[in-house]
Amino acid sequence: MSPANWTPSGQSTKPRASQSQSSNQQQAERSTVNKYNNGLDKCRANHQPLTPLHFLQRAADVFPERTAVVYNDRRYTWKAHAQRCHQLARALIQLGIERGETVSVLAPNIPEMLEAQFGVPLSGAVLNCINIRLDAASIAFILQHSETRVLLADTQMAKLVREAVDLSGLPIKVVDILDPESGSEERIGDLDYEAFIAQAPTEIELRYPQDEWDAITLCYTSGTTGNPKGVVYHHRGAYLNAIGQSMSAGMPGSDPVYLWVVPLFHCNGWCFAWGMAAMGGTNICLRKVSAEYMYSAIAQHGVTHFGGAPTVLDFLVEGKPANWSPPTPPITLMCAGAPPPSTTLRRTSELGFKVLHVYGMTEMHGVNTLCQPQYEWRQEDDESRLAHISRQGVRSIVMEEMTVVDAAFNPVPKDGATYGEVMFRGNLGMKGYLKNPAATQEVFAGGWFHSGDLAVVHADGYIEIKDRAKDIIISGGENISSLEIEEVLYSHPAVRSAAVVAVPDSKWGEVPCALLELDPDFSAPLTVDDIIHYCRERLPKFKTPRHVVFTELPRSATGKLQKVILRKFAADLLAAPPIQ
Amino acid sequence: MSPANWTPSGQSTKPRASQSQSSNQQQAERSTVNKYNNGLDKCRANHQPLTPLHFLQRAADVFPERTAVVYNDRRYTWKAHAQRCHQLARALIQLGIERGETVSVLAPNIPEMLEAQFGVPLSGAVLNCINIRLDAASIAFILQHSETRVLLADTQMAKLVREAVDLSGLPIKVVDILDPESGSEERIGDLDYEAFIAQAPTEIELRYPQDEWDAITLCYTSGTTGNPKGVVYHHRGAYLNAIGQSMSAGMPGSDPVYLWVVPLFHCNGWCFAWGMAAMGGTNICLRKVSAEYMYSAIAQHGVTHFGGAPTVLDFLVEGKPANWSPPTPPITLMCAGAPPPSTTLRRTSELGFKVLHVYGMTEMHGVNTLCQPQYEWRQEDDESRLAHISRQGVRSIVMEEMTVVDAAFNPVPKDGATYGEVMFRGNLGMKGYLKNPAATQEVFAGGWFHSGDLAVVHADGYIEIKDRAKDIIISGGENISSLEIEEVLYSHPAVRSAAVVAVPDSKWGEVPCALLELDPDFSAPLTVDDIIHYCRERLPKFKTPRHVVFTELPRSATGKLQKVILRKFAADLLAAPPIQ
Repeated sequence: MSPANWTPSGQSTKPRASQSQSSNQQQAERSTVNKYNNGLDKCRANHQPLTPLHFLQRAADVFPERTAVVYNDRRYTWKAHAQRCHQLARALIQLGIERGETVSVLAPNIPEMLEAQFGVPLSGAVLNCINIRLDAASIAFILQHSETRVLLADTQMAKLVREAVDLSGLPIKVVDILDPESGSEERIGDLDYEAFIAQAPTEIELRYPQDEWDAITLCYTSGTTGNPKGVVYHHRGAYLNAIGQSMSAGMPGSDPVYLWVVPLFHCNGWCFAWGMAAMGGTNICLRKVSAEYMYSAIAQHGVTHFGGAPTVLDFLVEGKPANWSPPTPPITLMCAGAPPPSTTLRRTSELGFKVLHVYGMTEMHGVNTLCQPQYEWRQEDDESRLAHISRQGVRSIVMEEMTVVDAAFNPVPKDGATYGEVMFRGNLGMKGYLKNPAATQEVFAGGWFHSGDLAVVHADGYIEIKDRAKDIIISGGENISSLEIEEVLYSHPAVRSAAVVAVPDSKWGEVPCALLELDPDFSAPLTVDDIIHYCRERLPKFKTPRHVVFTELPRSATGKLQKVILRKFAADLLAAPPIQ
Repeated sequence: MSPANWTPSGQSTKPRASQSQSSNQQQAERSTVNKYNNGLDKCRANHQPLTPLHFLQRAADVFPERTAVVYNDRRYTWKAHAQRCHQLARALIQLGIERGETVSVLAPNIPEMLEAQFGVPLSGAVLNCINIRLDAASIAFILQHSETRVLLADTQMAKLVREAVDLSGLPIKVVDILDPESGSEERIGDLDYEAFIAQAPTEIELRYPQDEWDAITLCYTSGTTGNPKGVVYHHRGAYLNAIGQSMSAGMPGSDPVYLWVVPLFHCNGWCFAWGMAAMGGTNICLRKVSAEYMYSAIAQHGVTHFGGAPTVLDFLVEGKPANWSPPTPPITLMCAGAPPPSTTLRRTSELGFKVLHVYGMTEMHGVNTLCQPQYEWRQEDDESRLAHISRQGVRSIVMEEMTVVDAAFNPVPKDGATYGEVMFRGNLGMKGYLKNPAATQEVFAGGWFHSGDLAVVHADGYIEIKDRAKDIIISGGENISSLEIEEVLYSHPAVRSAAVVAVPDSKWGEVPCALLELDPDFSAPLTVDDIIHYCRERLPKFKTPRHVVFTELPRSATGKLQKVILRKFAADLLAAPPIQ
């Protein structure tokens, strides 16, 4: 090869790809092409399936005597916690569980629920954490669809579980979790969790994944319409997001103490059960979330981090103890699940919590963005800072790509105004929906995960969610974000809960209707006109609700306000013509 | 399936694996086995090659205006740094570089060296960072063996580079890095780095890896005997260790400012060039490592983290400025490269640096263990704490397995006394040695990476390196760690450098010989007997050096004390019979 070959490739005199003699000769001279793939293969020394299950063994090795789990008077070190997880795996294997079968669990955030996050996958089974707020019919559907063979169940829900198992018609083996704190002495099955894990021979070998693409867990989405869909997580994604979440929360190197407010049946607690093992931190369990429990855990255990939906932030504000003083250093509170009203953010920040706004999808292993704090924000006044942290932000370190696109799949401009759908791609994407290839293909169309959420992109690249695509109100051709109106309504001191939905309108196509639960402690008289006037002062006319109804809001089994239900509810309520 | 099937598998009445009719029937009933691998395939939305190259684009998106690189009066934001990296990639592509070809670089830790860590792999080429302390013949060997097509070279080394390229006999295209700080106006090639990257058309598409197992970089080991071996890194390992190292250093969430003392030609700077992009931190470049430079960078730029060999710690101790006061919070100093004498650790800690002892292998993407601090150590006196942090510690979060085994491949007891060889396996293992399948197979024998280092394991599972396997002294059947004797010698105030090697002995087989460089400022007279007496008070008799020689120590081109050379040197010196 002569140096003359080194002209820019566009101007090369010798075509690279042709089969001409000179090209062949060049190929022979440039034998380098495959040297980096020759004799440099994968073997056990340099390649193993990525899995968060390794974090458990490492924590047991590195932090054997450090407290891993605290639950009222119970304490487990990392060594003891790992042993219990391992025994659960062995007991399941002994029971005959095979790789790729399903073990479900119905429990609050108690130690056994944490143990299931490791013990079930270590048996080779896939862990399915079922939302404990569902009704028996929904649970029965999930048991059937997941083909559950074993169910670990807290006996507080004995009646519900019996009914669901009966409805499922499956010969499910139920292992009772008997917790004195549950207040229940009822039994469901004939196995007792403690005895079950105690009797398993310690020589049974644990089953680590054979491939990092193997399923680790299954999470059913609540699904606003139709049956819930089973989101299948893989070991690779679970490993990456366990680390990714820990990094987003600033945990490494800080000996975190994590308070388990986020249910472990939501995206495996945003992957933090695994993340805490990676960190060698301490898990503080809770049977029931209340302000009292949270504040008492903070006072007793030196909590450094927790997460929660905006409702949890409201609990904290409303339940603040009389003697509360802002913690130093501040406790990191990751807020997700729904865009928090800025009033909620302000009040929580004032309590001394460092609110980190995060956002993500069940289908993407939980949390995928964070509102990454910037230096400049420290100098800002409260108003600007709140505006900044109200946004869902940027992709996390372990999320390869995020975009917000219009209907033609073009990225929307960074103008803070144009709506587009949020899309993700990368290693946090689920394997797909269990036994539902059509839905999987649809949600992954074009090689992107379609979130169904509408957002704007600000000049700094931070996204701000405006609405679920199907909840947007289109009035006279204008997009109206129901969240934007709700944000204004929440700032009114009398409003406890607000939901804004589209209702049909003969002139505008759709108009916004505000459904409001008022604070019973609010003493001044309040009229529909007062609310409309309040909104009109803070919103353009076309975004001001045309209808306002004071009413108790219908909620789903999981306590959610479901817009699809509320739209029907509002339409039924509105027999009268529009107000004004 | 009836619940009766739910007997423990060992006692099952129906054999699971047999092809009997009942078993087939059972299989049909238990159709679950493959449901988690059915219609749940990889696609672009849920699977992409892991690569640290994505961190660069993310940093440019999330921290566009934050300072990424500082070098004397030069400053680049993350946006500008990413643009320069991208332009380097495009310029290489334009030059005709193909995937899997080699681009080498010879430069100190200046901005262009950081840019090469991203820009070269983004052209599809493999980056080979050559040790700038090597001689022309060694560099020529590396250029030949790696089949280097393009060489980016700092013109400070113009003469060396010209000689090496001539010796290689290859038509290598040299791109000159012209840095006014280099003090050199000589030229090597006819391309100027700045002009080279400026002229590349911005529409040339960057080349992200097609597979995470693709090679990203090549690092030649110094190799104490024979020719250096080319260690091939993969995108997967580089991604994982970039994150792993950042976590070990406690960086996430802390806006780190990293001082570039560790040469980027050592394991790509322990993967921190990529790690800092993941963190969105700030890189402080240095042309030359000296106490003055380091202290001035610390004072000017708010350095939070850096790394270095024990020599660097000595620089800091010896070059402490008169007005130095311990920084708050303390600066994290990762120490690796050789086991630091405890005197060095003590003095560095006293300066207010938080020393984190880490250890690893070029073949495992750099750093693989850390001496993870434990709560209890905080309460300890200085002596115990130093004993703790003198150890190499435990596997890092991203290292799947580490073990210390005897000749029969059994793990040694955790007694702090029994020697074994340190072995690793997991996703940080290199692809292998380039064009050297025999060496690759040997070092990966049995599915473990054989480090060649001998260590003991303490009761808490922490390892402590005692010697290179080939440097151990076997005297009268007893293993003697040369490091242990050196540790004692370094504690003597007159000793500046110490090396202990085996020399043949007719009675004992081998005996320890101490080669010492003395501190010229040490004023008291000192004899060989003084040293032997000093050692005898601190070591068992069989470990006390039989020979002591005051001499200048021969060093390798890279400044290393190479035991293989020193053994010969010592044997030649010792014409006289053993002292005493």
